[in-house]
Amino acid sequence: MIGGNMSEHAAVNFANEAFYLAFSTRDLEAMDALWARQAPVTCIHPGWSALKGRDAVMESWQAILSNPNSPAVDCRNSVAHMFGDVGYVICYETLDQGILVATNIFVREEGTWKMIHHQAGATESVPEEDGDWDPADTVQ
Amino acid sequence: MIGGNMSEHAAVNFANEAFYLAFSTRDLEAMDALWARQAPVTCIHPGWSALKGRDAVMESWQAILSNPNSPAVDCRNSVAHMFGDVGYVICYETLDQGILVATNIFVREEGTWKMIHHQAGATESVPEEDGDWDPADTVQ
Repeated sequence: MIGGNMSEHAAVNFANEAFYLAFSTRDLEAMDALWARQAPVTCIHPGWSALKGRDAVMESWQAILSNPNSPAVDCRNSVAHMFGDVGYVICYETLDQGILVATNIFVREEGTWKMIHHQAGATESVPEEDGDWDPADTVQ
Repeated sequence: MIGGNMSEHAAVNFANEAFYLAFSTRDLEAMDALWARQAPVTCIHPGWSALKGRDAVMESWQAILSNPNSPAVDCRNSVAHMFGDVGYVICYETLDQGILVATNIFVREEGTWKMIHHQAGATESVPEEDGDWDPADTVQ
C-alpha cells in the first residue's frame, strides 16, 4: 500500500516503476491492473499506430508479454511531472536492441495512480546525470 | 479569441492546431507563445533525448524553425483526451520523410490551453478513418 505521506511525485514514480516491473517480468495480470479502468486509455508502441481503448491496449500487452522474443527492458532516469490528479513521467527504456525514451501519463483513479497513456520511441542514449532535474526549478 | 461555449476538447484541439500552424509556418514567436510559462515544459523530438525546461525546448524550436532543411509538417487525426485542467492530444504528423505519431500535453494556464510536452516518434502510416473515435465511448 502506498503510504499517505508519500509525495505525489513519488507515488507516480512508484506507479511508473510498477509498469516496468510488470513489463520486465512478463506479468500480464499486473500490467492489466495498473492501466486505468474508468478513464479511456491509449498506447503507442515504437513504430506502431496509436492504440485506443482498453481492449486494444491490453491485447497488445498480451501479445508482447507472451512473446519470448520480446526484449527485456530496464527503466532509467524517471522524472515525474505533476498537475493535480494527472501526472506524466519521462524516462528511458534500455533494451538489448537499443534505447527508447517514453512518456507515461497517469491519473488518480479511486485514490490510486493508474496509467492512461504510454508512448515510447527510439533515442540515441540515456543522458548522464539526468535524474536530479527538478521540474519545479524551472517554474517562472 | 476562443469562445466561451467552445468545448474543452475543441479548445485543446485548437491549441494543438496552433502548434502545427506555428511549426509549418516557421513562426517562432507563435511557437514561443503557445508553450506554458508557469508550468515546466519538456519536449522529445524524434530520435532526440528529452529536453527539459523552457530554455532548452525553445532553443530546439529556434534551431528547427530557422533551418531551411526542416521538414514541412501536416497534422492528421487529432483526438483530444481531457482530464480537468490537463488534456493530451494524439495525432499523426505527415512529413515528406515519413509519418510520425505524437503525444502533445496541454494545461490550462490563466484560462488558455498551453503546451507542456510534445513527443513525436516514427510510425508506419496514418490509420484510415481514425478521427471519429470518441474517448468517452470507452469509459466503463
